[in-house]
Amino acid sequence: MTIAIIGGTGPQGQGLALRFARAGVEVVLGGRDGVRAAAIAEELQAQLPGSAAKIRGLDNEGATKAAEEMVILAVPFSAHNATLEALKPALAGKILVDIVVPLAEGDPKKVDMPPEGSATEAAQALLGPDIPVIGALHNVSAVTLKALDQSINCDILVCGNSLDARKKVIELVRKLGVEAYNAGDAQSARCIEAITPILIRLNISKAVPFSHAGIRICPPDH
Amino acid sequence: MTIAIIGGTGPQGQGLALRFARAGVEVVLGGRDGVRAAAIAEELQAQLPGSAAKIRGLDNEGATKAAEEMVILAVPFSAHNATLEALKPALAGKILVDIVVPLAEGDPKKVDMPPEGSATEAAQALLGPDIPVIGALHNVSAVTLKALDQSINCDILVCGNSLDARKKVIELVRKLGVEAYNAGDAQSARCIEAITPILIRLNISKAVPFSHAGIRICPPDH
Repeated sequence: MTIAIIGGTGPQGQGLALRFARAGVEVVLGGRDGVRAAAIAEELQAQLPGSAAKIRGLDNEGATKAAEEMVILAVPFSAHNATLEALKPALAGKILVDIVVPLAEGDPKKVDMPPEGSATEAAQALLGPDIPVIGALHNVSAVTLKALDQSINCDILVCGNSLDARKKVIELVRKLGVEAYNAGDAQSARCIEAITPILIRLNISKAVPFSHAGIRICPPDH
Repeated sequence: MTIAIIGGTGPQGQGLALRFARAGVEVVLGGRDGVRAAAIAEELQAQLPGSAAKIRGLDNEGATKAAEEMVILAVPFSAHNATLEALKPALAGKILVDIVVPLAEGDPKKVDMPPEGSATEAAQALLGPDIPVIGALHNVSAVTLKALDQSINCDILVCGNSLDARKKVIELVRKLGVEAYNAGDAQSARCIEAITPILIRLNISKAVPFSHAGIRICPPDH
């Protein structure tokens, strides 16, 4: 299996590339500059054991085309719509996995949602109904992703209008050794994306005696 | 300390009354019918050891007036605004703790948010800036609250525009033996209220091998 990570040269994208490649999923990192993406891919590969799947680097369009089915979007929100506009033709027949959180400019403790309600809904509106958009992986800290000696302290809430695509993304995400849950249609992204700034607030405020808090779905206590 | 629970005759209100009284906080249950509220208060008191604080029952207005400082609103969303409109004069000088989730009519797996963005924001708009509104306790299952042999499997995210009121509510909630976190201003209620239908979806769909899922803030794994 080969996935693409658009904006894959950023911290979140790099962390996901490491985790997916270690789990046996081939990754094509996409960057605005394909040469830089290839150089970062090489650096990441060197951090992994020989048993890991391959990480390559291309420009964003090349990476999108190289993905078998799933393309993860990991750009800052300021580049969200323009990147999708440019990649729309290459995304035909694929699933877009949108991990972008619309953090408020100058205040990462708040969201500033687009008129559609969330990044996932904005992406779905922009790409049209033939390209399923699935929101996922919003709440995992990039630092945690890159710390390969740690497991991931965060359940993944997966949402989007296509149930079939949701199931495929849940299966993909579970390869990282985390629990992933069906959280409903794209509207749920208004909630899920907004969990991230709440976690950032806890980390910044030292309200928790640790950094890089995650969230987990918990059974009843007895 | 004496708190009021408006709509306290419902399952969430009853569960909170039991938990707070057991923790030593006097509770005045408010109902539309004060006689019925008094009868339910008596039933609840009988479930608690003699060391528990007192639970009384009054009509909603009487309960609001009897509260020292904090008034918890636990009515169905359909009664949210009308109840607040009626209680506004009695709420002067107090803090409203809004636990209401605007679940969609006929689909508890979704929210149907009011134009203000969330129940908490609607309450704040309706009550005006002199009565602080704090959103909290949205995500705890009523069944869990009433099962007094269980501890509560859910951290509490507390939000609202007044930091001072947020701190007071965090202190109150912690009396239940749960962790409570400052989750920012009232806008965070758009996220926090919407977590509840995601948990309801997991419970209904059997996606988790248990009922009455909660959420917790988690430290990094090592």
